[in-house]
Amino acid sequence: MVELNNNSSLDKRILELGSQCWKKMQGEIPSLFDPQFWQGHILDWVMEDEDFKIDGFRFVEVLPALTKNRQIADHVQDYLLKENRNLPVMVRSALSMAAGGIASPLAVMAIKKNISEMARRFITEDDPDKAIQSLSKLNNDGFAFTADILGEASTSDKEAEQYLKKYLNLIELLGNAVTLWPDNKKLYIGPDGPLPRANVSVKVSALDPYMDPVDYHGSIGRLKERLLPLLRSAKKHNVFINFDLEQWAFHDITFQLFEEIATHPDLIDWPHLGLVVQAYLKESPGDCDRLLKLSNSRDTPFTVRLVKGAYWDYEVVNARQNGFACPVFTNKARTDACYEELSLQLLKNHQRIHPAFASHNLRSVLHAIVAAEKLNLDPQCLELQMLYGMAEPQRKILSDMGYRMRIYAPIGELLPGMGYLVRRLLENTSNSGFLRQSYHDGVDISNLLRPPKPGKEMSQESEMQPGDLSTPFANTAFLDFSIPEVRKMFTTALEAVQKSLPIKVPIVISGIQIKSIKEKQHPCPNNPETIVTYLSIADQNQAQQAINNATKSWPKWRDTSLSIRGKLLEKLADGLEKDRYYLAALQCFESGKPWKEADGDIAEAIDFCRYYARQALFELGPSEQLAMAGENNILFFEGRGPTVIIAPWNFPLAILCGMTAAALVAGNTVIIKPSSSAGSSGFELYKHLLDAGFDKDIVHFLPGSGNIIGDFLVEHPQIAQIAFTGSKEIGLRIIEKAGKTYENQPQVKKVVCEMGGKNGIIIDEDADLDAAIKGVMHSAFGYSGQKCSACSRLIIVGDIYNAFTERLIDACRSLPIKPAIDPGCRMGPVIDKVSFHRLSLIINNPPDGAEILFEGNYTSPGYFLPPVIFAVSDPLNPMMQEEYFGPILTIIKANSFNMAIEIANATDFALTGGVFSRNPSNLKKARKHFKVGNLYLNRGCTGALVQRQPFGGFAMSGTGTKAGGPGYLRLFADPRCITENTMRSGFTPDLQM
Amino acid sequence: MVELNNNSSLDKRILELGSQCWKKMQGEIPSLFDPQFWQGHILDWVMEDEDFKIDGFRFVEVLPALTKNRQIADHVQDYLLKENRNLPVMVRSALSMAAGGIASPLAVMAIKKNISEMARRFITEDDPDKAIQSLSKLNNDGFAFTADILGEASTSDKEAEQYLKKYLNLIELLGNAVTLWPDNKKLYIGPDGPLPRANVSVKVSALDPYMDPVDYHGSIGRLKERLLPLLRSAKKHNVFINFDLEQWAFHDITFQLFEEIATHPDLIDWPHLGLVVQAYLKESPGDCDRLLKLSNSRDTPFTVRLVKGAYWDYEVVNARQNGFACPVFTNKARTDACYEELSLQLLKNHQRIHPAFASHNLRSVLHAIVAAEKLNLDPQCLELQMLYGMAEPQRKILSDMGYRMRIYAPIGELLPGMGYLVRRLLENTSNSGFLRQSYHDGVDISNLLRPPKPGKEMSQESEMQPGDLSTPFANTAFLDFSIPEVRKMFTTALEAVQKSLPIKVPIVISGIQIKSIKEKQHPCPNNPETIVTYLSIADQNQAQQAINNATKSWPKWRDTSLSIRGKLLEKLADGLEKDRYYLAALQCFESGKPWKEADGDIAEAIDFCRYYARQALFELGPSEQLAMAGENNILFFEGRGPTVIIAPWNFPLAILCGMTAAALVAGNTVIIKPSSSAGSSGFELYKHLLDAGFDKDIVHFLPGSGNIIGDFLVEHPQIAQIAFTGSKEIGLRIIEKAGKTYENQPQVKKVVCEMGGKNGIIIDEDADLDAAIKGVMHSAFGYSGQKCSACSRLIIVGDIYNAFTERLIDACRSLPIKPAIDPGCRMGPVIDKVSFHRLSLIINNPPDGAEILFEGNYTSPGYFLPPVIFAVSDPLNPMMQEEYFGPILTIIKANSFNMAIEIANATDFALTGGVFSRNPSNLKKARKHFKVGNLYLNRGCTGALVQRQPFGGFAMSGTGTKAGGPGYLRLFADPRCITENTMRSGFTPDLQM
Repeated sequence: MVELNNNSSLDKRILELGSQCWKKMQGEIPSLFDPQFWQGHILDWVMEDEDFKIDGFRFVEVLPALTKNRQIADHVQDYLLKENRNLPVMVRSALSMAAGGIASPLAVMAIKKNISEMARRFITEDDPDKAIQSLSKLNNDGFAFTADILGEASTSDKEAEQYLKKYLNLIELLGNAVTLWPDNKKLYIGPDGPLPRANVSVKVSALDPYMDPVDYHGSIGRLKERLLPLLRSAKKHNVFINFDLEQWAFHDITFQLFEEIATHPDLIDWPHLGLVVQAYLKESPGDCDRLLKLSNSRDTPFTVRLVKGAYWDYEVVNARQNGFACPVFTNKARTDACYEELSLQLLKNHQRIHPAFASHNLRSVLHAIVAAEKLNLDPQCLELQMLYGMAEPQRKILSDMGYRMRIYAPIGELLPGMGYLVRRLLENTSNSGFLRQSYHDGVDISNLLRPPKPGKEMSQESEMQPGDLSTPFANTAFLDFSIPEVRKMFTTALEAVQKSLPIKVPIVISGIQIKSIKEKQHPCPNNPETIVTYLSIADQNQAQQAINNATKSWPKWRDTSLSIRGKLLEKLADGLEKDRYYLAALQCFESGKPWKEADGDIAEAIDFCRYYARQALFELGPSEQLAMAGENNILFFEGRGPTVIIAPWNFPLAILCGMTAAALVAGNTVIIKPSSSAGSSGFELYKHLLDAGFDKDIVHFLPGSGNIIGDFLVEHPQIAQIAFTGSKEIGLRIIEKAGKTYENQPQVKKVVCEMGGKNGIIIDEDADLDAAIKGVMHSAFGYSGQKCSACSRLIIVGDIYNAFTERLIDACRSLPIKPAIDPGCRMGPVIDKVSFHRLSLIINNPPDGAEILFEGNYTSPGYFLPPVIFAVSDPLNPMMQEEYFGPILTIIKANSFNMAIEIANATDFALTGGVFSRNPSNLKKARKHFKVGNLYLNRGCTGALVQRQPFGGFAMSGTGTKAGGPGYLRLFADPRCITENTMRSGFTPDLQM
Repeated sequence: MVELNNNSSLDKRILELGSQCWKKMQGEIPSLFDPQFWQGHILDWVMEDEDFKIDGFRFVEVLPALTKNRQIADHVQDYLLKENRNLPVMVRSALSMAAGGIASPLAVMAIKKNISEMARRFITEDDPDKAIQSLSKLNNDGFAFTADILGEASTSDKEAEQYLKKYLNLIELLGNAVTLWPDNKKLYIGPDGPLPRANVSVKVSALDPYMDPVDYHGSIGRLKERLLPLLRSAKKHNVFINFDLEQWAFHDITFQLFEEIATHPDLIDWPHLGLVVQAYLKESPGDCDRLLKLSNSRDTPFTVRLVKGAYWDYEVVNARQNGFACPVFTNKARTDACYEELSLQLLKNHQRIHPAFASHNLRSVLHAIVAAEKLNLDPQCLELQMLYGMAEPQRKILSDMGYRMRIYAPIGELLPGMGYLVRRLLENTSNSGFLRQSYHDGVDISNLLRPPKPGKEMSQESEMQPGDLSTPFANTAFLDFSIPEVRKMFTTALEAVQKSLPIKVPIVISGIQIKSIKEKQHPCPNNPETIVTYLSIADQNQAQQAINNATKSWPKWRDTSLSIRGKLLEKLADGLEKDRYYLAALQCFESGKPWKEADGDIAEAIDFCRYYARQALFELGPSEQLAMAGENNILFFEGRGPTVIIAPWNFPLAILCGMTAAALVAGNTVIIKPSSSAGSSGFELYKHLLDAGFDKDIVHFLPGSGNIIGDFLVEHPQIAQIAFTGSKEIGLRIIEKAGKTYENQPQVKKVVCEMGGKNGIIIDEDADLDAAIKGVMHSAFGYSGQKCSACSRLIIVGDIYNAFTERLIDACRSLPIKPAIDPGCRMGPVIDKVSFHRLSLIINNPPDGAEILFEGNYTSPGYFLPPVIFAVSDPLNPMMQEEYFGPILTIIKANSFNMAIEIANATDFALTGGVFSRNPSNLKKARKHFKVGNLYLNRGCTGALVQRQPFGGFAMSGTGTKAGGPGYLRLFADPRCITENTMRSGFTPDLQM
């Protein structure tokens, strides 16, 4: 935390100067707030009505994707004309004209025109020549510029290359154009001499579709390759290049890139480079230090643009959703205070780093100006920056004070630009923002010029305390690969696993390890020459022994208190958490699972333990039924008996652990039958169970073949229930066998069963395609499509079919396929030779009517099968019906959204599904009619998290259970109700006159 | 409501007189409150610690049942020495001595002696001679008496006869003894001349074990037969007889009895008769009027004792538990005000009715005295009454004022007397009682002498509004047969049913009624000559048609909103409620079910509708999962498809309706296959479903044989699930068949299955045997034991075996077996000829080791099978293992409570169970180790109510479902989770800085 500034003479001067400025600006108003224009009115309503604000901004955001009048009319209706919305009569009737049954084309056009106009306030034209005209106008008005090409998301190398090309083109054009401009000392002379008139800001993430901290060095390598030519061209054309800072996840990569480029022999003497420091980052003081250090390694200064930061919503949400430490201040005044602190530091070091202060907050800007005054700096020693289309009165007054004012001017099409527009609108309307407070809320200027008073940060910490079941559950944080230490530990764990190979996994009954003579080998999918696991194979005698012991130990375990059972699960979670690197690394080898997905699997296993431990108290523990004087009714749940857990290989720890944890905490003894393709992971779970303190007679480890011990276990009269996750065929077989009552069977057998899926994602006409491509890629090809939740059908609505398919194929083409132990791996191998051949056969002999659109290629001794895309026109084509469990995606076109839903539902399965749409009516339709266990709107259809997305399907996908959700534990328990008549001799304790 | 008295001169005089009395009483204190005695201390603690009060009173209540020191020691430990209880050191150490490992016999004796002493303060000795000594002493001290023989509960005619004999004996003894007593004008001269010195109070309910308002005339007939000899003897021996009033349920019967006896030719001129008016009854002003009217029909006055009322707890609880209108004021001051109002009325009519005022509330008594003064009545015109052992200072001072003070003196053994003692202790310690307020709380006397200020009544009404699903569920009120109109309507309904016989029941598919050529006859079990139902029998073509229609209509029904579906259930409930008399009467004929049980069945059916309608919103409706910024997660449930309901005959409406209502409200279409022994009731449900507005394509009525359509339905691929209640054999068969996946089956079939029971009740050594006999009789022989919940095993612990068995046999001997249409029927016939022969065969050929203890006999053309009791010593004897489904009870002795639990658990079933015990440790053990779905402590094991006792068992009793409880509806539905990513272009609606 930076030391806060309390310099009262500084504050006094800021108040004085600010009041003068304010007085001079009287009567002027930023155009957006001007009530004479319709936007001013809209902005007013938006600020009065939070709900309208959300809908309005969402409408603005989707608008450029709407190509037909009918579409626009529908969206106007859904977003803006909601029932019970209090709209001014004029606005309502204008909107109604656009939305009405006739959908007046004129009204629709008017809306589109108006919103485009609003966007054009913030975004200059896409056409470079026109853009240069706008920039030239700025120059004529006395402002410098920095140009940015909108379009942050690249989903393929092709797009990244296109983006790079645009920049190169812009640099050349600008470099040439500005030479014709008249001279302007204030703007183009810096402290060390002339400044380039042309100035360009670059978002590096757009130059690489797979920039990711987990692949730190890979990302830097690829980006440098694209950035160096750009920088060299800039140097050649005398164009200043600024590296924008984006999300925190890209922070370290961008810094290191800047460092490497700034010290590159070609550029070490080039002064016209800059980077951004975001004052909302808790790390920003460190960033300053780091850049000061860098400046010592260079032959010439560079520029730092100090901003507050533009991704606040995203950062906060992203940190919460992943359980990461929140990188930004959540108290606005802390950001403001940090900004001032860093301003002082930069100004003090102005000779090594040229500071640029970008803010619309008058206080923040004046603070820098006054501090510079106090340091006796020339105005040219610092630069002020503001955004195109914002705070026009301020930029003028400050420029008039003699400062170089640079306007950040995005260039671009409206389509990618609307996200930018929404961010600007948000900034203008934010409750805590200077603009809203001064121009809308009418807060007194003297208040707005006061120094920031840092308040308390929003609580981000989860309240969950490991071991304390009374604290609410929270998901386990994922590993934050943006932290170097995390990357290092993962690498170390991979080395440790590699050293320990091959792993010999025994049968374990009541703690006694037994090795079978015959063992099953499991080769490493990345490279089958390495055997990861030698798995012992149990016979029926051993199965009988395990059942005997599990039967004998059951009553005591059933009668053990819920909190003791729950606390053992917590200890199991602690153990898994402690070992999470090793366990994840093991999956990279045994399961061919990429780093992040392997980490996700371990996190999910931990989640299951902690969630079920807490949920058990709530769901299985005693609850009082209707209170009634004279009687007391208590309902609670108890375990059912020995339970067999039959787990799949694709979530080697999570699914096995989830089913086992549920069965155990509900008071059942357990026989674990791990998948023979995930024996080592299964054995790790077993060992952790014992380490956590589960009695060796409570849980037994029984690897073996389905033929030999599977049926034997399922049919055994002493087995109370079977928890199974796997294929439809085996699931149905288990259900059928368990339906029979065998001799001496003490109870009706139950089966908790999760089977397959043939999951579809619908891409609606108005979908955010950037998000859709990313969501589909991850859903279809994450872990090579080997998830029951994986997307294997893509249903694209209407006209966007071609464009979307093309982008998707481009994305597939650049998907990084690598051994799973490589951090740059986005897709690894399939699990084994059998899968490889089975899938290859399908790909090479597709059913009639299936046209291959894309087939990647990758050669390796491992079981690598690059992504494949088929197109069909018949929803009942086998490609749309059979579950393949691999990286095969089938695409179909639907003429309407309704038809898309029909197609999506036309399968035996009902597990997951997804919809990318910004059409509220269609989203509502999907909620009602898209019949799957887990439906995801505007995100991918995999990656359900415990408690947040209770997981499971119905139809032929399962028995309608929800792992990691309410009700799951009760599937493993029998209810008991105890009623006591509390009245004795006419006297009852709960009633007094 | 009586008009309230506001006479201020009366109040002034009361205050004056009361203050004088109080002053004179200064220094005197009722012996129980005297801190010099240990009871005074105990009472102090009791009044400070509500929990100790409950435990203490419960200990006192059970004490006489404890015969061994070890038992007493255990109860001292459990009740009085609870952990964390704050007891004075002396008391704790004394109690610890009694409870300790050694269980000092002396300490135990001391405790027993002390409590007996306390009891003896309130109860005179059982031995008549000793009792007469006590009464004589009262006489010598200047008090009159009325003697009462304790022992309210008779469980058999034998006990009732014994009680009668005791009274006759007492009357004779007293009549003779008092002639020897010296004369005492104040006590024995009334307004009309001499009064009998001997005065006896009688509780009429003790004279008949089956006194019940449903059997109004039968009860009166039997009681009159026993009372007339008693009255005649009293007249002969010149003994005054007072009829005590007991529970409200007995109120009308007692009044009519008194009226008939008071106007009986033998007694119409006999003045020494009395009845009680309970001022806490809302009806008490009517009672006064009724008695005044009666006085006109007599040749001479009689006495009325005005009391407040002693069954307040019971009345409030009983009314709430049954949904009856609460008969008593729940605001204490209303009772006090009513008492004063009635005092005035009685005093004004003192020439027709001699008033006696019984109260310990000085204000209430003085109010009567002052009112009498104002009316210028002689003191002998009224009588005051107080209880033996209570309020000694008051009784003395009032007697000294010249009033006849009569002491109500119970005579009896401590065993039945402890209930009486507890009621006295409660009265002494009640927060709102005069005694506590004056002697313990130290409330100023002038406050206590103020006129009562009636406040608000406690709310008794349920908040449930039919049709409004947002109001909380409440159980439907049972018919209150103490209301003459209710009895009349039931009789009318029986006549209507009789007229409508035989009933022809068709098959109905999509509203089209089809009559089969062959029909199944169902004769009336009461008299098989009458055919109740001719039932059509569906074939497979019709089953297929029903399935087709149910399949076709399903999607629309599934997608109909929960509230619409729930409201239809509410309408169904309304319809059933409107028709409840007819529906119940139908069961008397078709099912041989007695009135109250038939009513209970209809009430339960209504409950299922209203509960599931409400529960559906809560349990199936959308619920937000963990709130997380940037995403929205909603979980909800949808129907699964066509559902077959296969119902039993024993709860012809309730079970069928419950399963159907659950399936429907959860969004499934339904095919009802009613039991062929309950076709008319089933058809009634179907008709009510249509009347309620359920679409004719949603629900189909398919009577038929299991062989022909049962398997066909269960195996059909389009059937999504089967809800079944019935035998183990058929249940397991359905589960097995449904476990298979048939061709073209769209989903895994589910079975919701309730099967049989072999339910045991444990009678512990310290059980309240009166309650236990009643509970066992109802559980074992209610509806002839034809309930899956019925008690068929009785496990009696230790020494009480013989005594209990004997009383039980006596109770069986007097069980009123009659046709079910007779309101006096406590047990009717079994369902049909097959059952009759099957059960007869078991009774006539019991397995080895089963000794017949009792076999009733009853001859009738109906299928009547009187109760049978067997004794066995082997818990595994078939009599302890097989479910017979009839009035056969098997008894076994257990040496210890632990053994009793082991025996209780030694069966394949786990449905219901019961324990009668007052041993907290044993009750705790039972809670933990008695493994059944529904365990009942200190009540019978049948009669689960919706929401209060979620019903269902496990092991071979069912699949662990709880009808009428949480989670049940979800068995009929599949969960769906919808996750929306709400962040668009970095903007999320749920997060603002």
